[in-house]
Amino acid sequence: MFFASDNWAGAHSKIAERLLAESGGFASAYGTSDLDQKVEAKFAEIFEREVSVFFVATGTAANSLSLTSVQKPGGISFCHTEAHVAEDECGAPDFFSGARLATVDGPGGKIDPKALATKVARFPQDAIHHGRAAAVTITQATEIGTVYSLAEIDAIAAISKANGLPLHMDGARFANALVALDASPAEMTWKRGVDILSFGGTKNGCWCAEAIVFFNPEQAKEMHFIRKRAAQLFSKSRFIAAQFDGYFQDGLWLDLARHSNRMADRLRAGIEQAPGARLAWPTASNEVFAIISKSAAKTAEDKGAKFYEWPIPESQPDLVNENETLIRLVTSFATTEGDVAGFLGCLA
Amino acid sequence: MFFASDNWAGAHSKIAERLLAESGGFASAYGTSDLDQKVEAKFAEIFEREVSVFFVATGTAANSLSLTSVQKPGGISFCHTEAHVAEDECGAPDFFSGARLATVDGPGGKIDPKALATKVARFPQDAIHHGRAAAVTITQATEIGTVYSLAEIDAIAAISKANGLPLHMDGARFANALVALDASPAEMTWKRGVDILSFGGTKNGCWCAEAIVFFNPEQAKEMHFIRKRAAQLFSKSRFIAAQFDGYFQDGLWLDLARHSNRMADRLRAGIEQAPGARLAWPTASNEVFAIISKSAAKTAEDKGAKFYEWPIPESQPDLVNENETLIRLVTSFATTEGDVAGFLGCLA
Amino acid sequence: MFFASDNWAGAHSKIAERLLAESGGFASAYGTSDLDQKVEAKFAEIFEREVSVFFVATGTAANSLSLTSVQKPGGISFCHTEAHVAEDECGAPDFFSGARLATVDGPGGKIDPKALATKVARFPQDAIHHGRAAAVTITQATEIGTVYSLAEIDAIAAISKANGLPLHMDGARFANALVALDASPAEMTWKRGVDILSFGGTKNGCWCAEAIVFFNPEQAKEMHFIRKRAAQLFSKSRFIAAQFDGYFQDGLWLDLARHSNRMADRLRAGIEQAPGARLAWPTASNEVFAIISKSAAKTAEDKGAKFYEWPIPESQPDLVNENETLIRLVTSFATTEGDVAGFLGCLA
Amino acid sequence: MFFASDNWAGAHSKIAERLLAESGGFASAYGTSDLDQKVEAKFAEIFEREVSVFFVATGTAANSLSLTSVQKPGGISFCHTEAHVAEDECGAPDFFSGARLATVDGPGGKIDPKALATKVARFPQDAIHHGRAAAVTITQATEIGTVYSLAEIDAIAAISKANGLPLHMDGARFANALVALDASPAEMTWKRGVDILSFGGTKNGCWCAEAIVFFNPEQAKEMHFIRKRAAQLFSKSRFIAAQFDGYFQDGLWLDLARHSNRMADRLRAGIEQAPGARLAWPTASNEVFAIISKSAAKTAEDKGAKFYEWPIPESQPDLVNENETLIRLVTSFATTEGDVAGFLGCLA
Repeated sequence: MFFASDNWAGAHSKIAERLLAESGGFASAYGTSDLDQKVEAKFAEIFEREVSVFFVATGTAANSLSLTSVQKPGGISFCHTEAHVAEDECGAPDFFSGARLATVDGPGGKIDPKALATKVARFPQDAIHHGRAAAVTITQATEIGTVYSLAEIDAIAAISKANGLPLHMDGARFANALVALDASPAEMTWKRGVDILSFGGTKNGCWCAEAIVFFNPEQAKEMHFIRKRAAQLFSKSRFIAAQFDGYFQDGLWLDLARHSNRMADRLRAGIEQAPGARLAWPTASNEVFAIISKSAAKTAEDKGAKFYEWPIPESQPDLVNENETLIRLVTSFATTEGDVAGFLGCLA
Repeated sequence: MFFASDNWAGAHSKIAERLLAESGGFASAYGTSDLDQKVEAKFAEIFEREVSVFFVATGTAANSLSLTSVQKPGGISFCHTEAHVAEDECGAPDFFSGARLATVDGPGGKIDPKALATKVARFPQDAIHHGRAAAVTITQATEIGTVYSLAEIDAIAAISKANGLPLHMDGARFANALVALDASPAEMTWKRGVDILSFGGTKNGCWCAEAIVFFNPEQAKEMHFIRKRAAQLFSKSRFIAAQFDGYFQDGLWLDLARHSNRMADRLRAGIEQAPGARLAWPTASNEVFAIISKSAAKTAEDKGAKFYEWPIPESQPDLVNENETLIRLVTSFATTEGDVAGFLGCLA
Repeated sequence: MFFASDNWAGAHSKIAERLLAESGGFASAYGTSDLDQKVEAKFAEIFEREVSVFFVATGTAANSLSLTSVQKPGGISFCHTEAHVAEDECGAPDFFSGARLATVDGPGGKIDPKALATKVARFPQDAIHHGRAAAVTITQATEIGTVYSLAEIDAIAAISKANGLPLHMDGARFANALVALDASPAEMTWKRGVDILSFGGTKNGCWCAEAIVFFNPEQAKEMHFIRKRAAQLFSKSRFIAAQFDGYFQDGLWLDLARHSNRMADRLRAGIEQAPGARLAWPTASNEVFAIISKSAAKTAEDKGAKFYEWPIPESQPDLVNENETLIRLVTSFATTEGDVAGFLGCLA
Repeated sequence: MFFASDNWAGAHSKIAERLLAESGGFASAYGTSDLDQKVEAKFAEIFEREVSVFFVATGTAANSLSLTSVQKPGGISFCHTEAHVAEDECGAPDFFSGARLATVDGPGGKIDPKALATKVARFPQDAIHHGRAAAVTITQATEIGTVYSLAEIDAIAAISKANGLPLHMDGARFANALVALDASPAEMTWKRGVDILSFGGTKNGCWCAEAIVFFNPEQAKEMHFIRKRAAQLFSKSRFIAAQFDGYFQDGLWLDLARHSNRMADRLRAGIEQAPGARLAWPTASNEVFAIISKSAAKTAEDKGAKFYEWPIPESQPDLVNENETLIRLVTSFATTEGDVAGFLGCLA
């Protein structure tokens, strides 16, 4: 019953085996091997267009270097108040890019387009003292388990474009969002106006596989140097490539995300039916936020369930009563129906 | 006949299998798992003392963050003129640490202690305009295949200590140097006065396994934040730990380095005996620099041998004649006797 | 009728003449001259204790380098939402310090102590992902013309100390606040728990005279290097010293601030009495925020008055009606009673 | 007898008086006043073409921000081994630009064009590991008192252009070089291929007047933000403008430089004739390097002369004998014939 995070799971067997299969032999280093090339081509195929792909070590690196690639002195990147780049990356995006983040509110963990337009307007291109708008970044799926609809991405992209701002998507849980929307990778990204994507594989069954995908080659042109200067260029780059190769094989990545979301669906359904438990807010991917009784939480923990208690949002101070607690449950490719049933049993 | 670099090899089967074996199950993230703890304890055992260990993605990260941990405004780090930190890391050490590198010459790719003392003296602690000495870094084995003797490390350490400067060792090829000296890890590091070590596993049979090892816990105290801000904290950290676990098992890491050095020994011996070929300079680890005829180089390449032609050192402009070329040959755990024999055959 | 900003005024004649008087002769450079020493001693006298003083070129530099002196990787500095460091310095504090700002709300442009305590608690010292609290900075007088009382500074300082955070004061308008409170420099700073002060002279009658004042010498120990690396060390430092020398002579600085505040008092009184005009909020220093009719604003502008229309605060959307406008009026040492009367005449 | 540095002198009376004359009244801040505009136009007139001009606080700022304006990740700026940017700015150019400096040797403190070409060739535009050439910077007059001839600048510019590298000139002593060559400002800069100039007034009779002059507006386009983020935008910018206004009035700046160089000429002539003294190397501006007996140095110091002993260049270890010392003498607008005669008298 490991629901603490999807990064507590290991690697899916097919990916681990693919890595083992590629462990022998010799190949040129630093991203130039045949396997690296093959996987880059695979990205182009999946996204139905030419792309520039850069492997990096972590999601934080993918986000930080993405934003660095489109920065300028005095620049401001706009993100949701609860975005990972703002809350969970120790200032890395600011450190690498030399720019600042400005946060924008919005319900359901998603940037409100109107609020974004208002905020961007405060940072015009000649605002020497105040700073100038430089980029917009959204998270798909969001940090609280919701998913931007295609129309919602359109609305954000329209404001970005109207202001000449590149649009970045933090896709640490890209696959979970994709299958939730039943959209194609192209439809959820560049066809909507996304310029740069942090494409995460780690949370969905890889050991360590993160990539920056540029849909606009012009914006990628400094990235070889940005990445190397950031100490993020792997010598044996092919071990990332091998993971992605297994990840994409026969649509494994989508299967894993579907499984993970399905386990979350079961959790959601079970919680809604459980007496004394309810969903804190609707979610659509592999994260479930539930309000349960403190005694049920204790029971679950005693039975070995792992999950995090979650801070009550400032905007919803009365979300729980004194006998309740807010918890986050994250499913992964490795979550079993038994895990879900076991947890739901604790609520009974 | 892959002699281009030791990072062209993949992963040793025992390490790859160890990774596969660890791929299942769940474990807490960000370096807190049991396996992470176990491997940290193993580092302490190997170095015969308490150490602080931080996994990072690349050797460049290990060096850059090591130097960052001991920096100060206006600080200068001293390294050899040909050091990897100065020549091959795209300015990452400067970028992360906000400090500069000053290069020191010395024969055989090793810092000359007297030259170091002279150079350090130019940067006293109150030199506001000029900058002040902050750290010394040496590479073991060096970029040109030589190895500092224990006495040579002592000499560098003595100058470092006399000037209050932390001593860092870039050990991207630590194991190759260690077995060349037949020393213990403790003897080659903290017993000599080394404070911080970039401990590399990647070039010696891992996929991606680099660690920063602090022998002085005080210097490590900011590293958790330095590493996270540098986007170098792996979520599934245990996949690095698993590699090191396999690497250290039954002394595998030393066996691999011994094999690699032995293959280099064979190359050295064969080159010395080959007509029209000679060693450019004596080396002691898994890198061999040879002067061979251009026709022999052509023959080798035609037969599929991979190696790099090497620039003629500025200090030795007459090293080769017009029919000759300087080449670098790097062996690895995966180099076979057949590879060596095949290459030497091209010189005949 | 120049009410646009106090930095539109030139230099007070006594300061300009003092500078002229010091223009001849020779003196050692980079802050080591007799005059530099004398002025540093004067600072110690004014603050009734040993201090470390560093001249810099701008208020932005004073703030940025102050915060840099107490930073750490992943550090967060806390300031008011409308603070100059957050709103008007183009990200310089972040750029120099490598740390981020977190904004805290509070009425009247002043940090609410309770909100500060809550916010600081979100960034504990082991929050590797989120970031850790590093410093608190307040502005005295604030950006909207109000002044922290001594008790209010105590409240902020108490939270800072309880969390081990250095307390910085942005005193770009230090003198205006000081005379408004009728406090001594010591009482308004280190006796309250302020550790570092940006002491501004430019807005109060100097050409260019800003100083960082450390009350805790330990925190100043890296500043010589921090300042030089920031390109803020003047060679002819004595031209800053000469200005401060004139500024402090016979209490000129306090006289100038009293004059400036008095002119603001007159404006406030006149506006309160003028038909169709009112104060937007109470202020205590040399800034006045008024709501006047658009026609009165037009009249004033036509007669040559200079002032800025001010954005309506988000928290007070109904502050003005459709025929009104919010304006900021800043007085200075050079503002005359005639200027004030002239402006008030436009409201009649 | 103040020969320690030209920055030990104060301000020329005409400049100090000009500043006094401008001290009254009100004017818009941050470089937008009429006087700022007038002085910018004056720069255009002096340089016989459209220019973009940015005032900053120090020569270090001028150099650092100039190099920042043309940087790129992994970039390398090339300068002479003894250049101020490399030796005397505490790493500020690296800190601001995020790029590194590579030093190039050359006799007489001047970059050897051939050595430059060789060095630049080591950093091609695709050298991800090594770094790529980004800019060239020369100092005119140099740190050791010599002056690049127009032909010598042409030679450096040709290599810069051939490699697509912007050429920056550190003109901290621009006027001294200009009158030494009897060239026009245009001839010594953009007509030679210089793109960006650090134009110094401080060492030649101003209190604090440094400007970055762009001959290529495209390269200036980020500078408003770069300067503000660097805390180098003066609010009362007109006090810099006023100094330059006085500086340029009736060719004062050239007169001051001519006087300064003339005093140096006298020193040179006197030293050449003095028994037991000689010039260390020929110089052409306001710096004189002399080898004198230790007893003469003692005599001069006892009589109140101020000058610095200079380190023996590494390339000329036998420059002085055991009874001699190498000294630097710097003249300024404020040096008198009496000072010179007094010093020479000490050598007799």
